[in-house]
Formats: sequence, structure tokens, C-alpha cells
Amino acid sequence: MHNEKRSNCPVFKVLDLIGDKWSLLILRDIILRDKRFFNEFIESDERIATNILSNRLAALESNGLINKVRDTKDRKRFIYSPTKKGLDLLPVIIAMVLWISKYDPEDSNVPELIKKDPAAFEKKVRAKFSF
Amino acid sequence: MHNEKRSNCPVFKVLDLIGDKWSLLILRDIILRDKRFFNEFIESDERIATNILSNRLAALESNGLINKVRDTKDRKRFIYSPTKKGLDLLPVIIAMVLWISKYDPEDSNVPELIKKDPAAFEKKVRAKFSF
Repeated sequence: MHNEKRSNCPVFKVLDLIGDKWSLLILRDIILRDKRFFNEFIESDERIATNILSNRLAALESNGLINKVRDTKDRKRFIYSPTKKGLDLLPVIIAMVLWISKYDPEDSNVPELIKKDPAAFEKKVRAKFSF
Repeated sequence: MHNEKRSNCPVFKVLDLIGDKWSLLILRDIILRDKRFFNEFIESDERIATNILSNRLAALESNGLINKVRDTKDRKRFIYSPTKKGLDLLPVIIAMVLWISKYDPEDSNVPELIKKDPAAFEKKVRAKFSF
């Protein structure tokens, strides 16, 4: 998957795990938008292609960022959820949103709570999960 | 450059600017490693290809994240430096490094100060620049 020389830089290690926009958008859907199913990710505005989605979900799972379990109510589909390690990327996502809100202050898509109290926003999101 | 549908999500907007690993690695070199010249970026461990480097430097400049000025001491080359907007991505980089240091605690490449006092680390890095 990678043809560059390996690097020990911590920034590189993160980017090696989530360094394409799709991986982080899937984590956004799972962590912030409570999406759980393949078809829900497909419906996001960014219109990820199904083959890319399959590929990124598998990579996120094998890197320990999301869990995949069969839906007991519908055995044909799987339920995706964040692991603790995946949820712990929330501060990265919040830092990104704060940056955009600084340079695009008219952006009405930034939740007010992130701007007013990022720590409270993080706590509120984490409370949805049982880690 | 992008064939996906446009999105108003703030996370997407950030990833649209820095959502490939090379852009953020170049910013890392400029902000944390004080690299200023094309040849210095080439020398980083990740071995970016020259055409990708040229492409990403141009994109970072046109997105207002870095400045490019001709070196008055050597008119054949350019000096790259972060803009305020680019430097303000430092919290994103720090959040990434803190995440790696949590899940890879033996990583000796994470500066001690980031782990002990991320705010002090950020202040120290910002002090290098005159914004």
C-alpha cells in the first residue's frame, strides 16, 4: 500500500493510519454522526465509492480503530463502531474543526459547543460510548 | 483534483486542504523541523517524490498555508515558511502526536515536552515565528 521509505516520525505514523481523507471521514460518521452501517456511510455528502469504502473500513478495522460485528437483527449486514483507540482520535477531529471555524467563521456547520467549549463537546461525544 | 461531491462538513473542508499525508508532512517539516528549502523536504525520511513535492507545495501556497519567497542570497531557490493560517494547524499536529504517544508509549521520537505539557510545547514552537 505504501511505497515510501518507512519513517519513525510520530506524525507519519498517524498519517499512515488515517492519512487519507476517507478514513477520517468514516471515523467522523461513526463518532459524530452515529452512523453504523455500510449503506449509511455511502449516503454521506462526500459520496465515497463503494470499493474505497470497503477498503477503508477493512483498514480501519485491521488498524484497531473500528469494530465490525454482524447485526443480530439482520444477519446480512454488519455494525461498525469505534474502538477506544478510534474514539481517542476525537481531539484531532476537534482541533481540525476549531481551525476551520477560525478561518471560516461564517461556517454554520460547526456546532456552537465546539467553539464555545471544546472540552465539554468532547465529553458529550465520549458519553455516547461506554469506554 | 476532486471528483467527490462537495460537502459543507467542516472536517471535510480541512481534509480538502491537508487531507493527503504529504501536505501535513511538509507542514511538519516547515513548522517543527525548520526546513525551508525544496531540497530539505526531499531529504526527509519519507522520501517524497519531487513531482508530488512540487504539487503539494503549490497547493499549500495557493491555499494560504505557506509562503514562498525567492532567496535573496541564492536567486535560484525559494524559501518556504508557514503563514499564520498554516502555523495554526499546530494543535492538529500536536493532537496527532499525543494520540500516537498514548498508543505507542515506547516511541522515543515523541518530544517529552509534548507529553508533559502540550500547551508549553505549542507556545515554544509558536515563539519561533513572528505572528
